Amino acid sequence: MELTHIEHLGIAVKSLEESIPYYENVLGLKCYAIEEVADQKVKTAFFKIGQTKIELLEPTSPESTIAGFLEKRGEGIHHMAFAVADGVANALAEVEEKGIRLIDKAPRRGAEGLDIAFLHPKSTKGVLTELCEPGK
Amino acid sequence: MELTHIEHLGIAVKSLEESIPYYENVLGLKCYAIEEVADQKVKTAFFKIGQTKIELLEPTSPESTIAGFLEKRGEGIHHMAFAVADGVANALAEVEEKGIRLIDKAPRRGAEGLDIAFLHPKSTKGVLTELCEPGK
Repeated sequence: MELTHIEHLGIAVKSLEESIPYYENVLGLKCYAIEEVADQKVKTAFFKIGQTKIELLEPTSPESTIAGFLEKRGEGIHHMAFAVADGVANALAEVEEKGIRLIDKAPRRGAEGLDIAFLHPKSTKGVLTELCEPGK
Repeated sequence: MELTHIEHLGIAVKSLEESIPYYENVLGLKCYAIEEVADQKVKTAFFKIGQTKIELLEPTSPESTIAGFLEKRGEGIHHMAFAVADGVANALAEVEEKGIRLIDKAPRRGAEGLDIAFLHPKSTKGVLTELCEPGK
C-alpha cells in the first residue's frame, strides 16, 4: 500500500451555511463545490489547501452518522482520508491481513466520485480513517 | 493571512510505543523523530506524508492538556495546524480583528522549533486550530 498524501479531512458541522463564512472570511480558503452525498446522508462543502481538501459535513437526516457524531462530540474533525496510489481494494486486502478492522469490505463511491473505504477507529488508534483513490 | 498547506495533524495517543507500529507497519509511514516538548507536557513522534506531518502526542503528565483530552474523548485527532506564509504574529492580529478567540496572544516556540499559536475551538467551528511558521 502506498499512501501519497492526506487527500482530505472530514469535519462535522451543524450547518454549512454557518461554517463556510469562517473558512472563507477568516482562513481565506475558497469553497469550490457543494455536493449532497445521499448514501451518507450528508451535504458537503469543499475547500482546498495545498494537497489537501477540507470537506465540511452537515447531516441531512438525524440518522446520518454525522448527526450521531455531532450529538456525542459536537463539531470537530470527523475523519482523516489518505490518498492511495495503488488501489483501494488492494489496500483493504493488505490492511485486513494485518489485523485492521474494516468498515467497508470493498471500495464504494464517495463524494467527488472517488473510490473510498473506511477503516474502523477501534483498530486505527482512535482515528476514523478513510482510504481513497483520486482521479478515477 | 496566507495559509499554504496543512503543516501537521496532532493526534492524541495513550502511548507512542503502542501507536508507532500502526503508523509504520500498517500505513507504511516512517517515524523520523521523537521529541519531548516539556512546555506542553507531551512526548511527540513525527511522520511525514506528502506536505503534511502527523504528530502523535503522548502526555507525560496527568496535567497535560492531552491527558485531559484522552480522558474526555479517548484517542483521536486533537488539532489541525496550518502553515502560514506571512508570519504567525500577523495572522493572529488579523484573525483576532475578525472576532476569533486566541489561546496564544503571541507566537511561542513549538515542536521542531516552529513559531506556533493556537486558536480557540469555540470560535473555529469546533476544530482546535494551530497556526505555524515553518523554516525559521
